Amino acid sequence: MAHYAKGANAERELIHLLYDRGFAVVRVAGSGKTSLPCPDIVALAPKVKLAFECKAWDKEHLNITTAQMDELYKWCARAGAEFYIAWKVPHKGWLFLPGKFFKKTPKGYSISQRKALVKHIDLEVIAGLQKRLK
Amino acid sequence: MAHYAKGANAERELIHLLYDRGFAVVRVAGSGKTSLPCPDIVALAPKVKLAFECKAWDKEHLNITTAQMDELYKWCARAGAEFYIAWKVPHKGWLFLPGKFFKKTPKGYSISQRKALVKHIDLEVIAGLQKRLK
Repeated sequence: MAHYAKGANAERELIHLLYDRGFAVVRVAGSGKTSLPCPDIVALAPKVKLAFECKAWDKEHLNITTAQMDELYKWCARAGAEFYIAWKVPHKGWLFLPGKFFKKTPKGYSISQRKALVKHIDLEVIAGLQKRLK
Repeated sequence: MAHYAKGANAERELIHLLYDRGFAVVRVAGSGKTSLPCPDIVALAPKVKLAFECKAWDKEHLNITTAQMDELYKWCARAGAEFYIAWKVPHKGWLFLPGKFFKKTPKGYSISQRKALVKHIDLEVIAGLQKRLK
C-alpha cells in the first residue's frame, strides 16, 4: 500500500479508537503540508485535550526532525494539550510516546522500536481511563 | 468565486483571526463530507475550547438543518467545547452566533441577517479577551 494510504488508514483507525473511548475527535486538514505545523489528530473531552502526530512506519527507529518536534510542542503549549507521537508498528499495535522518550540526535529526535515497545503508554492511561502505576 | 473556494478562504481568514488572539487552531479535514459531522474549525487555549461552523453566505437568512445542528452540539458536548456558527457576511464582517440565537423552523434552524447583525457576539468576547456587559 502506498505510504500515504497507509498513514491515512492508521489515522482513521486511531480516530475510531479515541471516539470509542468517549472523545470528540478531528482529523486535521493538511497537517502534513501547511506552513503552520499542527498535529494530525486532536481529541477532546471535557477535562482532556490530546494531540497526536501519527506515524505508521515499519522501521527499527522512528525519527522526528527538531523543527517538527519544536513546532508541535509550541502548538500544544498554545492549546494546553498533551502531545503524543502515535507510532503504529505492524503486528504490534499502537505505541503512544511523549517527546521526552526520544533521544536527541544531531538531526532531531529518535527512538528505537525496542525502547518504544518497552516504554510506550497505553491509550487507556492517556484517555484517563486507567492510571499508570510506575 | 466558486462556493467552495469562498468557504475555504473564509475558513483560512478565521483561522488567522483566532491564531492572532493566541489560540492553537486547526482546520478539520473533510468536515463537510464525512458521516461523522464535526465542526470546520477547532481553536484551543489552555482554558478555552471553541468549535466553529463557518458559513460565507450573502443571504437574508442563514439556515442550518436540524440534523447538522444536533450533531454539532453532540460533538461539542463530548468535547466540552463552546460552539458558534461563524457567519461571514460580505462587507459586514464576521458574526459569531450560538445556536440559541436561531429560531426553530419546520426544516431546521434559521436566523435573519438583521437579527444576526444585532445579536452577534464579538470574537474578543468569545476568545475571553473581553466580557459582554449585556
